Amino acid sequence: MRPSGRDLSELRPVSIETDVTKHAEGSCMIRMGDTHVLCTATLEARVPPFVKGSGLGWVTAEYGMLPRATNTRMRREAAAGKQGGRTVEIQRLIGRSLRAGVDRVALGERQITIDCDVIQADGGTRCASITGGWVALRLAVNKLMKAGDVISDPLIDPVAAVSCGIYAGQTVLDLDYPEDSEAGVDGNFILTGSGRLIEVQMSAEGSTFNRDQMNQLMDLAEKGVSELVALQKAACA
Amino acid sequence: MRPSGRDLSELRPVSIETDVTKHAEGSCMIRMGDTHVLCTATLEARVPPFVKGSGLGWVTAEYGMLPRATNTRMRREAAAGKQGGRTVEIQRLIGRSLRAGVDRVALGERQITIDCDVIQADGGTRCASITGGWVALRLAVNKLMKAGDVISDPLIDPVAAVSCGIYAGQTVLDLDYPEDSEAGVDGNFILTGSGRLIEVQMSAEGSTFNRDQMNQLMDLAEKGVSELVALQKAACA
Amino acid sequence: MRPSGRDLSELRPVSIETDVTKHAEGSCMIRMGDTHVLCTATLEARVPPFVKGSGLGWVTAEYGMLPRATNTRMRREAAAGKQGGRTVEIQRLIGRSLRAGVDRVALGERQITIDCDVIQADGGTRCASITGGWVALRLAVNKLMKAGDVISDPLIDPVAAVSCGIYAGQTVLDLDYPEDSEAGVDGNFILTGSGRLIEVQMSAEGSTFNRDQMNQLMDLAEKGVSELVALQKAACA
Amino acid sequence: MRPSGRDLSELRPVSIETDVTKHAEGSCMIRMGDTHVLCTATLEARVPPFVKGSGLGWVTAEYGMLPRATNTRMRREAAAGKQGGRTVEIQRLIGRSLRAGVDRVALGERQITIDCDVIQADGGTRCASITGGWVALRLAVNKLMKAGDVISDPLIDPVAAVSCGIYAGQTVLDLDYPEDSEAGVDGNFILTGSGRLIEVQMSAEGSTFNRDQMNQLMDLAEKGVSELVALQKAACA
Amino acid sequence: MRPSGRDLSELRPVSIETDVTKHAEGSCMIRMGDTHVLCTATLEARVPPFVKGSGLGWVTAEYGMLPRATNTRMRREAAAGKQGGRTVEIQRLIGRSLRAGVDRVALGERQITIDCDVIQADGGTRCASITGGWVALRLAVNKLMKAGDVISDPLIDPVAAVSCGIYAGQTVLDLDYPEDSEAGVDGNFILTGSGRLIEVQMSAEGSTFNRDQMNQLMDLAEKGVSELVALQKAACA
Amino acid sequence: MRPSGRDLSELRPVSIETDVTKHAEGSCMIRMGDTHVLCTATLEARVPPFVKGSGLGWVTAEYGMLPRATNTRMRREAAAGKQGGRTVEIQRLIGRSLRAGVDRVALGERQITIDCDVIQADGGTRCASITGGWVALRLAVNKLMKAGDVISDPLIDPVAAVSCGIYAGQTVLDLDYPEDSEAGVDGNFILTGSGRLIEVQMSAEGSTFNRDQMNQLMDLAEKGVSELVALQKAACA
Repeated sequence: MRPSGRDLSELRPVSIETDVTKHAEGSCMIRMGDTHVLCTATLEARVPPFVKGSGLGWVTAEYGMLPRATNTRMRREAAAGKQGGRTVEIQRLIGRSLRAGVDRVALGERQITIDCDVIQADGGTRCASITGGWVALRLAVNKLMKAGDVISDPLIDPVAAVSCGIYAGQTVLDLDYPEDSEAGVDGNFILTGSGRLIEVQMSAEGSTFNRDQMNQLMDLAEKGVSELVALQKAACA
Repeated sequence: MRPSGRDLSELRPVSIETDVTKHAEGSCMIRMGDTHVLCTATLEARVPPFVKGSGLGWVTAEYGMLPRATNTRMRREAAAGKQGGRTVEIQRLIGRSLRAGVDRVALGERQITIDCDVIQADGGTRCASITGGWVALRLAVNKLMKAGDVISDPLIDPVAAVSCGIYAGQTVLDLDYPEDSEAGVDGNFILTGSGRLIEVQMSAEGSTFNRDQMNQLMDLAEKGVSELVALQKAACA
Repeated sequence: MRPSGRDLSELRPVSIETDVTKHAEGSCMIRMGDTHVLCTATLEARVPPFVKGSGLGWVTAEYGMLPRATNTRMRREAAAGKQGGRTVEIQRLIGRSLRAGVDRVALGERQITIDCDVIQADGGTRCASITGGWVALRLAVNKLMKAGDVISDPLIDPVAAVSCGIYAGQTVLDLDYPEDSEAGVDGNFILTGSGRLIEVQMSAEGSTFNRDQMNQLMDLAEKGVSELVALQKAACA
Repeated sequence: MRPSGRDLSELRPVSIETDVTKHAEGSCMIRMGDTHVLCTATLEARVPPFVKGSGLGWVTAEYGMLPRATNTRMRREAAAGKQGGRTVEIQRLIGRSLRAGVDRVALGERQITIDCDVIQADGGTRCASITGGWVALRLAVNKLMKAGDVISDPLIDPVAAVSCGIYAGQTVLDLDYPEDSEAGVDGNFILTGSGRLIEVQMSAEGSTFNRDQMNQLMDLAEKGVSELVALQKAACA
Repeated sequence: MRPSGRDLSELRPVSIETDVTKHAEGSCMIRMGDTHVLCTATLEARVPPFVKGSGLGWVTAEYGMLPRATNTRMRREAAAGKQGGRTVEIQRLIGRSLRAGVDRVALGERQITIDCDVIQADGGTRCASITGGWVALRLAVNKLMKAGDVISDPLIDPVAAVSCGIYAGQTVLDLDYPEDSEAGVDGNFILTGSGRLIEVQMSAEGSTFNRDQMNQLMDLAEKGVSELVALQKAACA
Repeated sequence: MRPSGRDLSELRPVSIETDVTKHAEGSCMIRMGDTHVLCTATLEARVPPFVKGSGLGWVTAEYGMLPRATNTRMRREAAAGKQGGRTVEIQRLIGRSLRAGVDRVALGERQITIDCDVIQADGGTRCASITGGWVALRLAVNKLMKAGDVISDPLIDPVAAVSCGIYAGQTVLDLDYPEDSEAGVDGNFILTGSGRLIEVQMSAEGSTFNRDQMNQLMDLAEKGVSELVALQKAACA
C-alpha cells in the first residue's frame, strides 16, 4: 500500500557514516532512504551572551538545504537574504531537542554548534537532522572527554526523532516525500533512548484527527525511535 | 498552588469584545486574564500567486507584539528589520490552524488576513490569537454571507486553542506567564468545536515527560477548548 | 461645511485614558475622534552611546501603525523588513518634540522610550502621538519622582501638537482623514503649554499658500494646543 | 558676529554651473559657499505604478552624500544596507517641493528623477539640493520642449529654498555648518519665484521660539529665495 | 619542498564522481585532494528577463560553502543575511567561465543553473567548482540531447580551471590551503580543452611579480588544465 | 579604426586635479577622457579588528557610482539596500592593489580609507579609481610625514592601472565605453612604478584568446601604466 512497498511500521533503510569531514570535531552523514543529511559538530570556547559567566554549556543548531536537494530547485537562502520561516522553525527545534539530552553543567561553559545540511531531500529532513545531529554531538563530546576537558559525560540520554503520519487513512512510520506530500496528518516525535518524550508535534494537513489516531502515531514513534537509537549507538561504537 | 489561585483545570477569566475597530471587516479584542490580543480580519479580492485561478479561498495570519506588551520592553521588529523566529513560527501556526476550520471551496477565490497584535502579554498569546482570530474570521465571513457574496457557510467547525503544561509537577490548564516561565513541559492544543485535533505541540522545557502525562494534558485541553468555543459562539451571536 | 459638521476652529472630541497597560511605567490611550493611539513610556537605566557618561537623560520615541488601523490594510513593516520613510520621519519628530519639554540635566542619565502605536487611524496620528506621548512621559516621570530617583521635576513645560490646514479654501483646526486627504495645505504645530513654538511644519499639497494664511493657521494651532494641554493636565491629575 | 563675517541677511557666495555631466538630460553643480551639490535630471518614459495610465507626469528626487563630503567620514549608505532616516526625509522633501512648481498635466505621462549628490557639505545641503534640483529640472524640460515632446511649459513657477535660523540670539539667513551646529532654532523655507510658500519647517534645537522670531525668519527667507531665483534664471538663460 | 610532498607541477589526486544526487539533471562530486565540491546542474525553461525572447540560452552559477567546510566554522551566509563579497566574486567567475564554452544559440532559450557547494575546503575551491561545474553541465546537456530537445551540441569546448602561484619563491601548480595561505602570488587560470584562454587572474599577495614568473605560471596552468580536461572526459564517458 | 580616433596604444587625455575637497586628508579628481572619478583619502586612528594591536597599518577602499554617471540611470545602491556584486568586486580590487604599494609597518597602526566615487563614467572606472586613489593616498601620507606622525615613507612604489583589450580584432590600450561594450577580451592591469605586476585580470567576453594576444596586452599595459605613473608624480609634485 505504501509507495515504497514498506510495512506500515517499517523505517526506511538507515545508515549513519561517521567522521566524514576532516575539519569538524564530530560529523556524520545520515541517510534515511533518499534523505541524506550531513551533520557536523563544532566546538567553541565562545558562548552566547546569555550564557556567559554562568558556567553552563550551550548546544545550538543550524539547518540548511542545498538548492537542488529537492526535486525542483529552491532559491538559495543566502541569495534571498534571509532564512525562511521553515528553516528557522526547524533549526530551533533541532537545538531545543538536542539540549534536552545534555547536562549543561557537566558540559561546562563551552558551545557546540550542530550544522545540519541537507544534501538530498526525500521527506523527514528535520528528524534525520536530529538523529544525525546527536551522533555528531556524541563524537565531539567523546573528543572532549578523551582530552580530559570534561570529566563526567554531559550526554545523559540519546535523542532521536522520527516522523509518523496518516497516509491513505492509515497510520504509518517514517514518511518519505511521496507520502508526506499526500498525508492528512503529519507528526514529528522526538524521544530519548529511554523512551521519554521531548517534543511531540502533530499537525492536520487537510483532515483533522482524533485521540485514538494520536495514540497509534505515538506507538509507531516509540518503535521507530528505539530502532534509531540502536543505530546511533552502533555508529558511535 | 497556582500563583493565580486558580484550580488546576480552570481557565483565566476570558472576555471577547467584538467590532472594536471601525475599519476591519471583522474584529475583536480577546482578553484571557492579562493577555490582551486585538484580532482583525481583512477581506481582499487579491489572493497569493499559488492560489490564483484555483477558485479556492485563502486564510492567512500575521502576528505582532507591541514593544511594551511585555514586562521588559522588546525591540520593535520593524526597527530590527525582520520578524524573529518566534514570530514567524507563531503566525504560521495561526494561519494553518484557522484554515483547518475553513471550506476553501465554499469561501471562493478571495483572501482573508487575520492580524493578531498583542497589546498586553501574560502568557498564552498564540492560543489567544487563534481563539480570537477565529472570531474575527467568523464576523468577516458573516458580512460576506449577508451581502450574498458567499452562499454556503465556509466555516465548517470553530477553531480554538489553549495551552496546558506541567507546572510544579502538576498538569495545569491555561498557563499564565509566571507558570509558563517555570513550566517543565509546555503544550499548545488546537481543536475544533466538535473535539477533533488540529495541532498538538508539546515541548519539554527542562524535564522530559511520559505518555501518561501527555494524556492528562490532552484531557485538560479538551475541557478548556470546549469552554472557549462556547465563549466564541456567545460573542458572535 | 466640514464633513464632520465641526466649526472651523473646533477640535474633535478628545479623551485621554491613563494607565491602560500593566507593564509600562506610564501609559495612555489617546482618542482624537476616530484616531486612537496607545502611548507607553518605558524607563531604562541604559542610555544610547552618545549620551553615556554625560550625566544627561534621553527621551526617544518609536511609532508604528497596526496593519489594519487604516481603511485599507497596509503591509506590516516588520514583514516588509524595514520602517518606511513616513514612519521614520514621524518618530524622529515625536522624539525631538518631547525632548524640547525636558530638562535633561534634571532627568539624570536614564532613558525614557515613548512607543506610540496607532490602533485606529483617522488623520492626525503624529499629533495625537505627541500629545499622548507627553502624558505617558509625565506619568513615568511622576513615578521616578515619587520613588525619589529624581529630585526636581525634569518636565519643564508640557508639549502638545495639533494639525491645521486649508480645506475647501478655509483654514481649519484638527483635520480628520476626509479633510486631510483633500487639504490643499497641511501643517503640524508643536507648542508648549506656555505657548512657545517647538516645531512648525507647513506643506503645500497641491496649492501653495501665503503668509496671511500661515498666520491664520498659527492662530488656530495656538487655540488647539491650549485646549489639549488642559486635557493633558486633567488626565494626569 | 557670524563666523564667516557675513551680514545677518547675507547669502553665502552662490554659483550655479550648468551642463556639468554628459549623460544627464539636465544637470548643474550648485555651490553655496563650501556646500557643493551635483544635481542631475533623468528623463524616463517609465512612471511609477500609482501614476500609470493617469496621463499625469511625475517628478521625484533622490539624495545622497559622498562619504567624505563631511569633516568626519560617514559610513556609505550602500554599505550600511539602507538609507538613513535623515536621507529619506530629505529626498521626500526635495521631491515634494519641486512637484509644487510643476503642472503635471502639461508634463504628460513621463517621469523626471532629480538626483542630488552632495560632493562637499558645509550646511544647508537640502536647500541647495532643491535650488539646484530646480535648475536641472528646468534644463531637462527645456530639452523636452525643444524636441516638441511637450507643448506648453509644465514649469509654472520656479522653486528655491533657503535655511534661516536663530544663531547666537539673532535671526540669520543661510546658515553654514558652524552656525547650524550651534543654532537654537533652525528652519528650511521653500518658496516659489512669485513668493508663495511651499513648505515651511522650523524646529527648536535646544531653545523654543515665539511668533515674532518666526516672522523675522520668514522675512529673511523671502529675501534669500528671491535672490536665489534670480540666480537660477541667470544660470538657465 | 611542498608541504604535501608533491612535485612543483603535480596536481593533487583528483576524482570526479558523477550522478551523485537523484534530483539534479546533472551532478558530480569533484575531489581535488581534500577539497570536495558538490556540483549540480538544474535545467529550467524559465530564463532571466534580459534573455527572454532572444532565443538564446543562459548558464549561470551559484557558489556556497557549508559553515564547517573550513578549519574554523564560518558564519552561515543565509543567517548573516547576505552573500559575502568573496562568494559573489566567485559565483560570477564560475558562470562567466562556463558560458565561454557554450554556444547559446544551439542551447536554445532555456537556463541551466550550476550550484557549486563546498562540502570540504582545502584551497582551490573556485577552480574545482569550475572544473566540476562543467561536468554537471555536460551531463545535463547530454540529457537534453538524448531527449531531442537540443539538436546540435551546445558545448563547444570543455572548460576547466586550476590555480597556480608562487610559494616559497617557486612557481607551483594547484595550491592546497597550506600553500595558498603562504603564497606570495596566487593565480586562477581558466582554459578550454583546446588550450584557449578564458580568464586569467593573477594577484600579488605580499610580493609583486614579473613577466617571467607570469609566463611560468601560464605554463603550469596549461599543463594542469590539460590533465583536468582528460579527467572530465573520462568521467562523462 | 578606434571610435575615438586614437592610436592603438594611445591613452585618453588624462588629467589629475588635486586637493579638490576641503575635508579629506588627500583628494583628487582624475579624468581619463569622459571618465571622471573623485578620489578621497580619509585618515583614521581606528583600525579594523583583525589589525588591532598588530602595529601594522591598513589601507582599504570603497567604490560607488552616482546614479546618473552612466548613459542610463542606474538604481542607487543605497536605495536598493545593498552593494551589487560588481561594486564589491571593484572595491576589493582597489584596496588590494593599493596595499601592494604600501609598507604597512612604516605606516603604523592607522587606517586610510580611499573612497572612489564615479561622477561620470565612460569605461575604465576601476582603473581610474586605482590610479587616482594612489594620488589621494600619496597626498594623505605626505600630510602624515609633514606632521612627523610617520618617519620613513610607507609608500614604496606607486601603483597605477590601465585596461587593455581586444577590440575589432586588435589589441588596444585604455578602452572607452564604446570599445569596452564591444570588446572580445577585456583586461585590467595593475602595476607598480617600477614595472612589477600586482594584479592581472583578463577575461574573454564572447571570444577566447591565446598567449600571444595576452603578451601583446601586457606590452600595452606596461606602456600605459608608465605614462600614468609619470602623471601621478607630476600631480603630487
